[in-house]
Amino acid sequence: MSECLFCKIVARTIPAALVYEDEQVVAFDDINPQAPIHTLVIPRTHFASMAELQDADVTLLGRLMLAGNKVASLKGIADAGYRFVVNTGIHGGQSVFHLHLHVLGGRHMGWPPG
Amino acid sequence: MSECLFCKIVARTIPAALVYEDEQVVAFDDINPQAPIHTLVIPRTHFASMAELQDADVTLLGRLMLAGNKVASLKGIADAGYRFVVNTGIHGGQSVFHLHLHVLGGRHMGWPPG
Repeated sequence: MSECLFCKIVARTIPAALVYEDEQVVAFDDINPQAPIHTLVIPRTHFASMAELQDADVTLLGRLMLAGNKVASLKGIADAGYRFVVNTGIHGGQSVFHLHLHVLGGRHMGWPPG
Repeated sequence: MSECLFCKIVARTIPAALVYEDEQVVAFDDINPQAPIHTLVIPRTHFASMAELQDADVTLLGRLMLAGNKVASLKGIADAGYRFVVNTGIHGGQSVFHLHLHVLGGRHMGWPPG
């Protein structure tokens, strides 16, 4: 069994309230939110980070982003606006090594982005 | 002729040093960088924002992200790590209304992401 926290959420061995799910991805709220709305979208398949993704994964990546749009709509922030963030490696500030897209909104997101 | 600044860069009617280009996307450095490396990846096709993208655009979105990986490699930040950011609408902090992926690195990106 994988020790990956997010794989356990996908497998439902750790409970999480899912915001959205389909065949490819799962979305749930960040446990340490940085904005009124802060949801993570992850692929069901394990990739340690964005750096692992290859040309063959092009559709999965597109679906990850489109699922981010769906989350924005479900959370009621589609019209006001929102930010997507993907952190890769140390300089990116990645903390969980299973690819995830942050969807943030519900406030004006500042600049620079971290 | 479009008045969109980024469409003009795609059309080469405004000069920009391209970091990367392929059939679908073009990448160039942000003129107001927020990190030592700060490059934008945009689709050649005009979309005002991420909110306009539909299921039919899934491949284009995947290519946008994969091109972000290519930019990270070309800029020499793939190993140290990097951050992708996409701003949508007012709360997202979007300033140019042609879809663009920010690729940031060369320093440790902080948290929260804006």
